[in-house]
Amino acid sequence: MEELKQKIQQAWQSLKAQELEGTKAQELYSQTVWPLLLELWRQEPQVYPLREAFEVSIHTLGTSPEATTLAALGLGAAEVYVLHTPESRRYLEQLQRDLGRSVYPVEIDKSDVTRLYQAVGEQVRKHPDKRIALDLTSGTKAMSAGMAAAGYFLQRVYPSLRVAYVDNEAFDAALRKPVAGTEKLILLRNPHEVLGDLDEHLAQELYQAREFSKAADRYNALRGKTGQGSFEVYAALCAMYQHWYALDFAGALGQAQRLLNFLAQDAYRAHPLVRHAGRLKEQKEGLEAIVALLKSQNLGEPKGAIWLTATLIQLADERRKQQPVLAALYYYRSVELLLQHRLAQQGRNADDPGLSEEEQQAMREHLARWLGRSPSEVRLPPKLGLLEDVALLRHLGDASLDFPDKEMQGYQGVLKGRNKSLLIHGLEVSKPGDLDKLQEFSRGLYQKAREAGRLMPQVKPIDL
Amino acid sequence: MEELKQKIQQAWQSLKAQELEGTKAQELYSQTVWPLLLELWRQEPQVYPLREAFEVSIHTLGTSPEATTLAALGLGAAEVYVLHTPESRRYLEQLQRDLGRSVYPVEIDKSDVTRLYQAVGEQVRKHPDKRIALDLTSGTKAMSAGMAAAGYFLQRVYPSLRVAYVDNEAFDAALRKPVAGTEKLILLRNPHEVLGDLDEHLAQELYQAREFSKAADRYNALRGKTGQGSFEVYAALCAMYQHWYALDFAGALGQAQRLLNFLAQDAYRAHPLVRHAGRLKEQKEGLEAIVALLKSQNLGEPKGAIWLTATLIQLADERRKQQPVLAALYYYRSVELLLQHRLAQQGRNADDPGLSEEEQQAMREHLARWLGRSPSEVRLPPKLGLLEDVALLRHLGDASLDFPDKEMQGYQGVLKGRNKSLLIHGLEVSKPGDLDKLQEFSRGLYQKAREAGRLMPQVKPIDL
Repeated sequence: MEELKQKIQQAWQSLKAQELEGTKAQELYSQTVWPLLLELWRQEPQVYPLREAFEVSIHTLGTSPEATTLAALGLGAAEVYVLHTPESRRYLEQLQRDLGRSVYPVEIDKSDVTRLYQAVGEQVRKHPDKRIALDLTSGTKAMSAGMAAAGYFLQRVYPSLRVAYVDNEAFDAALRKPVAGTEKLILLRNPHEVLGDLDEHLAQELYQAREFSKAADRYNALRGKTGQGSFEVYAALCAMYQHWYALDFAGALGQAQRLLNFLAQDAYRAHPLVRHAGRLKEQKEGLEAIVALLKSQNLGEPKGAIWLTATLIQLADERRKQQPVLAALYYYRSVELLLQHRLAQQGRNADDPGLSEEEQQAMREHLARWLGRSPSEVRLPPKLGLLEDVALLRHLGDASLDFPDKEMQGYQGVLKGRNKSLLIHGLEVSKPGDLDKLQEFSRGLYQKAREAGRLMPQVKPIDL
Repeated sequence: MEELKQKIQQAWQSLKAQELEGTKAQELYSQTVWPLLLELWRQEPQVYPLREAFEVSIHTLGTSPEATTLAALGLGAAEVYVLHTPESRRYLEQLQRDLGRSVYPVEIDKSDVTRLYQAVGEQVRKHPDKRIALDLTSGTKAMSAGMAAAGYFLQRVYPSLRVAYVDNEAFDAALRKPVAGTEKLILLRNPHEVLGDLDEHLAQELYQAREFSKAADRYNALRGKTGQGSFEVYAALCAMYQHWYALDFAGALGQAQRLLNFLAQDAYRAHPLVRHAGRLKEQKEGLEAIVALLKSQNLGEPKGAIWLTATLIQLADERRKQQPVLAALYYYRSVELLLQHRLAQQGRNADDPGLSEEEQQAMREHLARWLGRSPSEVRLPPKLGLLEDVALLRHLGDASLDFPDKEMQGYQGVLKGRNKSLLIHGLEVSKPGDLDKLQEFSRGLYQKAREAGRLMPQVKPIDL
């Protein structure tokens, strides 16, 4: 092998010594240097970083068939496809002669990136289980560009696919040839994979779609793939909202703390999330209040109750259009929670209301006006429902329940309808009009409670 | 202008007539043809399909600075960045002289696709609001490949970005130059956009993440972008599952019908979804049964009740790990629905059970064994809860409830716990062990009901 390499160098030197140019130099190159080079690559192709085995290779072909020959030898595939232009068709014969085998030609337009991209995709999809290499060395820049774009993208679906290219360590400007013997076939890395930009884009899309868990998985994978710690910070953010949206408040709080710890580190002082640090700190404090509420079970505690209600309303609002049945459930629970909160502040509870005679009478009168019946027709259940809660709080003078009777007449149907809904005990799916009323009532109640508690919770995930 | 074009042709012809080659031809080209070509492009760059205004252009630079000069003139940006290699650095001066302005150089390695890709990304991100063009004409194929991959990807985030390339209608092999006057700057189309493959990939990811609505949006956008009707078929599939998962069964049925109509058309005979047609038809029939159940409100009807239960269990199973609180809600509702179904088949219902003395006594005995109390300690509420439902059905001899007492002792806690859960009336979030038991009970009940109804519903969305 070393001998062959020396011969190539000698042939190159003697070609240079003749100081020929243009066609004559090309002819002499073909007669003296090229046969030796071909022999070398047939015996031992120069591949970087390591030779791999391929079953199919696909090549662009322009006006330098030698590079394509070297690439095909270096890739060593049994099936060789060549994308050529009408102009480069004439090199197919030389290519096949040099390779000592036939190739499969596919004609394309030298400037049509899209068509080339499509042709590459078609060939790749025809061999889904084979190891395929794309060689972009020859052909116009548009052809190489299309080949690269196709290859780097298709690699996501066919991870074993490789993009290759014949490089050289030195190029002779006068002969317009690589210095003989310095050619090497490079298996190119995929910049999308190295930098992870496409995965990051997907992670952002998943975050925006509120698929926090899948977004976190992707950020964690990016962390491993690129070695960049900044992705771990994003993963912590996703994990925080994932737990929060799943109503696992302790889990969310743990991640919020972890996230804020990251942002306090010098290493992440310039992290894009730092500009949201204030908002994230508020959210962490909100989570602390909810966790405390779930521990104490003291529904009278305003901060926890209001942040928990804000969570339910956020979930409901986001599901309003696409998942109205679930949205109704969250709105109902937000209304009930606020009523439980207000009752607790008065030292009462709906499951065991302990109503005095006077209270029962007053409630019947309220309910009668809202239901359009007479007080004697109104029956009070042993455990109060949403509408009875409102009546009791009204009687107890709670200012957050001062909806006019006319409005309560509008709300009573939907408040009484809770148990009939598909996700509670019944088979009803909320009608859009009902959902509007429920949302309106929930918001009205929530705003008054928020003002009373002087709190402005913002559960909405920050924008990336 | 026409005069200038004629002069270029004359200069080219006279260069050719001298039959020079190599360095001498290059020199004469620089002296005679190039100044005229430069003048033409300064006055009227040849841009295809249409000239656009750019603020920033970024170029690769190899050993043909003329192409880069033409590209920079054609793009006409005020800020010009040039990615050069150590070897091509020497052309920077000529480039600046020809352009009559200074350019900003960035040194890169000619074979390092990733570094080039990164450098392009950095420059683009520095000018987020400007119109940017990337020119990949000059430089090695690896450089062009990196530029193309970067450009086509960045276009998603910066839609106004363009990838450009100086092509020519004829190339003179002897002079190794484009035939003078046939050069044109082409603003290349983005194959990802033309073919929509990247969007399709994203749509598939969203489908797998069960973000059916967002997946449908993407497929519909792809339909518009590529004109391919096959994407509309996928959009119908997504819309069907989106409505189904949102418990909008009538909406899901409408989309299922639309989807099956598509698949029956000749145009879509080879559509990839056709192989799932059998399963999709079964799902459509399941949806019909649920819609009929919601209309009749007759819970005794097996097919509707079992498909609806299967839906709730599917939703619960998918949310089990990431959203246990919601999963618990769906499992509870699936259990309750099956109990309602079995009671309805016996002509009974839990809200108004009308229990005889004998029934009450028998239920107390069952409940006492499960709760570890004496029958006299057991109180029966006016509306039956889940555990009382089971006791009644057991007494009525329902074979689907023949869980051994020992098992019922394990299930009683979680069945009684329903109302305490965060999404019902309480503040409890299910512990993993509770969720396991609930799932187990739900599955056991469901399997027996399914066998009794001889049905095998498969709610799981088909694989794309």
